[in-house]
Amino acid sequence: MNFISNPHIKLGILGGGQLGKMMLLSTANYDVYTKVLDPDPHCSSAPFCSEFVQGSFNDYQTVIDFGKDCQYLTVEIEHVNTDALHTLKSMGVEVHPDPAVLEVIKDKGRQKEFYREKGIKTSDFQWVEGPDEIVRLVKEGSLVFPFVQKTRTAGYDGKGVKMVRNEEDLHHLLAGPSVVEVAVPIKKELAVIVAQSDATPGIVAFDVVDMEFNPQANLVEFLYSPANVSQHIKDQAVSLAKSVLQGFNNRGLLAVELFLDEQDELWVNEVAPRPHNSGHHTIDANVTSQFEQHWRSVLNLPLGDVTQHSPAVMVNILGEPGYEGPVTYEGWSDAMNHKGVKMHVYGKKTTKPFRKMGHFTVISDTLDEAISIARNVKNKLKVVS
Amino acid sequence: MNFISNPHIKLGILGGGQLGKMMLLSTANYDVYTKVLDPDPHCSSAPFCSEFVQGSFNDYQTVIDFGKDCQYLTVEIEHVNTDALHTLKSMGVEVHPDPAVLEVIKDKGRQKEFYREKGIKTSDFQWVEGPDEIVRLVKEGSLVFPFVQKTRTAGYDGKGVKMVRNEEDLHHLLAGPSVVEVAVPIKKELAVIVAQSDATPGIVAFDVVDMEFNPQANLVEFLYSPANVSQHIKDQAVSLAKSVLQGFNNRGLLAVELFLDEQDELWVNEVAPRPHNSGHHTIDANVTSQFEQHWRSVLNLPLGDVTQHSPAVMVNILGEPGYEGPVTYEGWSDAMNHKGVKMHVYGKKTTKPFRKMGHFTVISDTLDEAISIARNVKNKLKVVS
Repeated sequence: MNFISNPHIKLGILGGGQLGKMMLLSTANYDVYTKVLDPDPHCSSAPFCSEFVQGSFNDYQTVIDFGKDCQYLTVEIEHVNTDALHTLKSMGVEVHPDPAVLEVIKDKGRQKEFYREKGIKTSDFQWVEGPDEIVRLVKEGSLVFPFVQKTRTAGYDGKGVKMVRNEEDLHHLLAGPSVVEVAVPIKKELAVIVAQSDATPGIVAFDVVDMEFNPQANLVEFLYSPANVSQHIKDQAVSLAKSVLQGFNNRGLLAVELFLDEQDELWVNEVAPRPHNSGHHTIDANVTSQFEQHWRSVLNLPLGDVTQHSPAVMVNILGEPGYEGPVTYEGWSDAMNHKGVKMHVYGKKTTKPFRKMGHFTVISDTLDEAISIARNVKNKLKVVS
Repeated sequence: MNFISNPHIKLGILGGGQLGKMMLLSTANYDVYTKVLDPDPHCSSAPFCSEFVQGSFNDYQTVIDFGKDCQYLTVEIEHVNTDALHTLKSMGVEVHPDPAVLEVIKDKGRQKEFYREKGIKTSDFQWVEGPDEIVRLVKEGSLVFPFVQKTRTAGYDGKGVKMVRNEEDLHHLLAGPSVVEVAVPIKKELAVIVAQSDATPGIVAFDVVDMEFNPQANLVEFLYSPANVSQHIKDQAVSLAKSVLQGFNNRGLLAVELFLDEQDELWVNEVAPRPHNSGHHTIDANVTSQFEQHWRSVLNLPLGDVTQHSPAVMVNILGEPGYEGPVTYEGWSDAMNHKGVKMHVYGKKTTKPFRKMGHFTVISDTLDEAISIARNVKNKLKVVS
């Protein structure tokens, strides 16, 4: 298949955020013809695609018009119009992730149900109509603190998730249909990114990573690869991630977020059918990045070598609380003057508190050294307005 | 200096070929505002710069108009209008390489004279007006076979260089003013890339590499890093490269090509004041790539960490002899199915014999393994029409 430098083989991407941008910096190495749909003409991806279309990926007709001349179509965000994707698929466009899979994953209620049906270990849950029902269930005693409320749709980047610890938290519940989950006593949060392709036998998994979250923003703050867990747990995590992918039987990446509890049991938290924050370090620490692996799988090409050549720490660069508006970067030259640092600024034109504005990866001979450099660099960087 | 996401700090680049493209894939990680001048709107760089201007970098007024709103100006090719660069420099634009340095380097006659003046070891040479003078000098006995003819200007990618071994070769000399050099009995061809910046003390050097040339095309075919020479020779090579940079006292990269002779003596062959084929592996094998190092130096930022994390082999992908026209890639999927391979297709729309169409780097735990994979992959790739 001559997908290189061939404007007749178009890869369409719904969404033009940082995940799209990083995918485009990877397709650029093969001169793949790319087309991006996003409502914002100043989005991170716009300067790097072959063709940019301004419009809403939630609108049926816009997605149809956008996708009908693409041979392959993928997403960098789940919240897109899947009705249009079903139509495009029936018209012969190769849509990955599959629209049906996307519908299950983008609804956190259906996603949890899927795990239950497939016998994949996940925390107990129930669907609720909204805050009133949650309050009623607590009063009845059928829901006990602490638990987690997740809105069924439209959650991203830490939004749409609420830890509910006490009566006071009941006054700050999220609106709308939700899923409430038993809070797993978490020792660590792990993630595994897997992919399959007809051209490569079996499922290929990146190394297991562990992540520390910023409790205020509910976002990954530090990511460590390799994860600081036993080989036995790593093997179990990979095996669990593979069984989730087998359940979905999907092309494109599947990023599987896992909880490790106090008894060293693994639970599936949630998944994303696309490149994911838990794989950003692969750009700089692995032979093949998650972004290249994603489009290789979408195009049904041989999957890339996922060998990690260096221990790595990834740190998200978030908008400083208290600042909102046109972005300014402080302390950058100083931060660039450190060993092992690979910087990734997403090019968003405005900042707001805890907005993901970039990330950096530190690679080093040892993970400990990378951690120490990463903490140093993080303290120097500021994204303000 | 707020150079990130700042459209008021523009980096202008004269030339839009593959070196420009790879520089832009690196500035993309910092959202640097970039502006490219090239006569071809379909050049490799056009899709990846913030602003593209179609025009000749050889035309005085075009370069002035292009460069006057840039704060920093650099090149990805030497053969540009340096008169315009002098004017822009006097207008306050930071031009690196310095126009005066560029004038010396782009004229291979003046470049050789520079080495002689600075006492830097290089092969004996003389300037000639053209083929007639060369024939006369041979007849007089003041020029003996074998020797090398290089046209003083406009040579690039193996063009403008002719090895003259015998009487027969005298019928195929290159036209125009040239420099003729004694042919050094070469054991190896090495290269070192160096840079300086006010923000980093001293000169920073990438590891020494060795290169095997395609004799037909006079182009690098295989590049090995680290070079297979003693530490003593590496130290000497770095020290020689540093002394050349001190001689030019220039910002931006200086790529120094060296000959190692049968007596393990080092000679400077020639230099390039920009990213260079001998540094392509740094994208995939080093913390900081040569492309990022170049613009860091041009912007006078701290230089990056040049640590190489993995042994690497770089192979140029050349247009197959016998094919000319719109490009087609054969054997690619198969080639992608190898360990350690990082592909870089330049996105040129047409191929011709021996045209540089891309390169790939193989990284591995050992150089021997990387070499064996590289030879395998090279045999599978074809660029035809």
